[in-house]
Amino acid sequence: MADLLIRGARVLQLRDEKASVLPDHDIVIRGNRIDRIAPTGAIDASHARQVVAAAGQLAMPGFINCHAHAPMALWRGLGEDVNLESWFNDYIWQFEANLEPEDVFWGMQIGLLEMIEAGITAVSDHYWHMDYAARAVEKAGTRALLGQAMFSGGGSAQIDETAAFAKRWDGQANGRIRTILAPHAPYTCDDEFLRASARKAEAIGAGIHIHVAETLEQTQASLQRRGQTPIAVLEACGIFDVPTILAHAVGATPGDLETLADLRQPTGIAHCPKTYAKLAMGYSNVVECRALGIAVGLGTDGAVSNNTLDLWEAMRLTALGQKQLTGDAENLTIAQALTIAGADSARVYGQGAELGDLSPGKLADIILVDLSGAHHLPLNSVSASLVYNVRAGDVQTVICDGQIIMQNREHRRLDKDEIMENIRPRMERLRRRDRVPKIQTYNP
Amino acid sequence: MADLLIRGARVLQLRDEKASVLPDHDIVIRGNRIDRIAPTGAIDASHARQVVAAAGQLAMPGFINCHAHAPMALWRGLGEDVNLESWFNDYIWQFEANLEPEDVFWGMQIGLLEMIEAGITAVSDHYWHMDYAARAVEKAGTRALLGQAMFSGGGSAQIDETAAFAKRWDGQANGRIRTILAPHAPYTCDDEFLRASARKAEAIGAGIHIHVAETLEQTQASLQRRGQTPIAVLEACGIFDVPTILAHAVGATPGDLETLADLRQPTGIAHCPKTYAKLAMGYSNVVECRALGIAVGLGTDGAVSNNTLDLWEAMRLTALGQKQLTGDAENLTIAQALTIAGADSARVYGQGAELGDLSPGKLADIILVDLSGAHHLPLNSVSASLVYNVRAGDVQTVICDGQIIMQNREHRRLDKDEIMENIRPRMERLRRRDRVPKIQTYNP
Repeated sequence: MADLLIRGARVLQLRDEKASVLPDHDIVIRGNRIDRIAPTGAIDASHARQVVAAAGQLAMPGFINCHAHAPMALWRGLGEDVNLESWFNDYIWQFEANLEPEDVFWGMQIGLLEMIEAGITAVSDHYWHMDYAARAVEKAGTRALLGQAMFSGGGSAQIDETAAFAKRWDGQANGRIRTILAPHAPYTCDDEFLRASARKAEAIGAGIHIHVAETLEQTQASLQRRGQTPIAVLEACGIFDVPTILAHAVGATPGDLETLADLRQPTGIAHCPKTYAKLAMGYSNVVECRALGIAVGLGTDGAVSNNTLDLWEAMRLTALGQKQLTGDAENLTIAQALTIAGADSARVYGQGAELGDLSPGKLADIILVDLSGAHHLPLNSVSASLVYNVRAGDVQTVICDGQIIMQNREHRRLDKDEIMENIRPRMERLRRRDRVPKIQTYNP
Repeated sequence: MADLLIRGARVLQLRDEKASVLPDHDIVIRGNRIDRIAPTGAIDASHARQVVAAAGQLAMPGFINCHAHAPMALWRGLGEDVNLESWFNDYIWQFEANLEPEDVFWGMQIGLLEMIEAGITAVSDHYWHMDYAARAVEKAGTRALLGQAMFSGGGSAQIDETAAFAKRWDGQANGRIRTILAPHAPYTCDDEFLRASARKAEAIGAGIHIHVAETLEQTQASLQRRGQTPIAVLEACGIFDVPTILAHAVGATPGDLETLADLRQPTGIAHCPKTYAKLAMGYSNVVECRALGIAVGLGTDGAVSNNTLDLWEAMRLTALGQKQLTGDAENLTIAQALTIAGADSARVYGQGAELGDLSPGKLADIILVDLSGAHHLPLNSVSASLVYNVRAGDVQTVICDGQIIMQNREHRRLDKDEIMENIRPRMERLRRRDRVPKIQTYNP
């Protein structure tokens, strides 16, 4: 018997980087997995516990956000029109000196609310006070891979503390929550700290989520100070002995890319193009990474740089940006963009076998998208519309782990009014930039 | 007495490239103009013929689309992942061999419907069979500057014909419709044809809307064939003796920019960044153009390249693209992006004194935007949200020439179902690519 039946949807399929759309199909969900996909009418719907009518809507995998700091939505719009050094030193690391644990619980919720509305069902989040973020994820019904951030200046005791967090939450919420260790970056963590983090990750069976080579300037600074690129530093410190999510790697050298292509452990890059453009950080060559076999997934980064948590935008900017960067509009095709958003992001997220594709046996993280708006008409190509036309507001229904968490744009789990009532009184404190010292200084 | 009163809105103001937001203000409209803007309560609303409650919404000028081919929405999604030469020769100029006049009436309407939903109240449209486009604009209630396209291969009689179109429609629909001459481009119009077009435009008091230097390759080809850049060709042919809208100018040389900066007649560039990225055409340096005093406005181009008609996206891509291009995130600030979308686009459109800004005496083209969605929260900066967060679906109400044409997302003029019923049976013919000859060959 079906626990949930999605009735009469168009179903997006991606095989070997070709996109196709099954018309009028039903999706049967048992427990938290997809059981069957078949033409409408072939399945007896009368015994399904719940039926979602989806005629004319497009079913596709929920988006996977490979790199975010969702609670930073609290400071959305407050670090504008500045370069990276000022963004860190004059804004972010001053703001974060005001951060209290409970802020993360509410900030994570507003970020999750926005992501659910945009069809994001899983997020790899790298931030502070992550017990509070985990409680928010439990409540929201989404999937998350959580890592508690650390700078080596905070002392090595953090490694045990964040490992304890990781053990506390890994597999919780019916397996929706997984955990990871999260040293911040090679420019904020010394070699010894990185080595200890890698050993700890290996000991507890966790991966590592780390910022690296965010710009070419960081790579040049690392070469001067340490005689190695940031990616070479990670390799030398044993980080790549465990599965690793590399946030950004915009400043990766050709040699770095060879290193990444040769790794035995699954390692992937989280590509966050809106942040790169907004902070004038340069641009990764995703086309080249993919040609080398390096997995590239999509990320939003935080909403103080982005300023939204919207992977439709990230997917579109990836396609547009790579065509522009390489000077060849045949690069980064529609099907490739959808593959990056789907299977490749699932691989970077560490659940490549279970997420990122709609087929029997996969976890049931499914979104339903309305393509009837004027901005899609006439609908000559569903797959082109997904990459170039959809607005996050076209997402109607979001299912994660077999449960409906938003239906016809009504939230089933989170309460926007409650969240904002709790955020509003915090903002006067959170906006202050007069605390001494700030939590860190950017000087790579 | 007010014909229309907008009650309790936040009102966006831009002065000297600084953005501010008036809280809780009323806007009084008499006839088709803004009469007064004052704090809510200061104006007696009891005599207003119509009141629009706008508490919590943001009032701003309707967007002005400086370069479009709105009826091309018919082929949306059908020219994907190809470079410019193939886009023209294998798709567009084959499709357009199938075009019938009545297609333009319905294609223009689906484009206008999408633009209205995105808050665009004026469009400078460059296409074929423009009597049919003008009838669609009359019906839609929007503003348009219409030019009937011509290639010199079609013969010089077109110049008189398109001038007759221009005279027939200029000032119609209560002045909402204005007209312009529209030779296609220097690579499809020879010098004699360009000279004759310029003389005709001068004679009838019209301007010229033309594609020019769409890529650097076009500039190089022109230098080889004609010994002049495309912009120098236009100057030599007298095009700049009348007000001119230059579509793209991505391949403008430093000398070309000096030429444009020195012009006596108002001339501006329509900047369409989504098309440039999607077709890998390169990128204009808008920061440099603005420093030279050259007006730059926003355009969508057609939906076969874009693939939407959404100037929120164009504004965002302009800000992101220029930061990235110049490597300096302090460039193209939020207030500058809003100024480009407002006053500067009005200037390129040729109504700089009447559009693009909300103040008494201006034409009443006003949109109301809802900023209560999760993707704006917490709303720390209204102006940042306008540039980086708004989705076209946040536009609630659209007023053009003092008339409400969409209220709370319900259309007052156009009927989506009627439009699609008329488009559907046309698509089998329109999608064909087997007509010989195609309407033109791209070989600049």
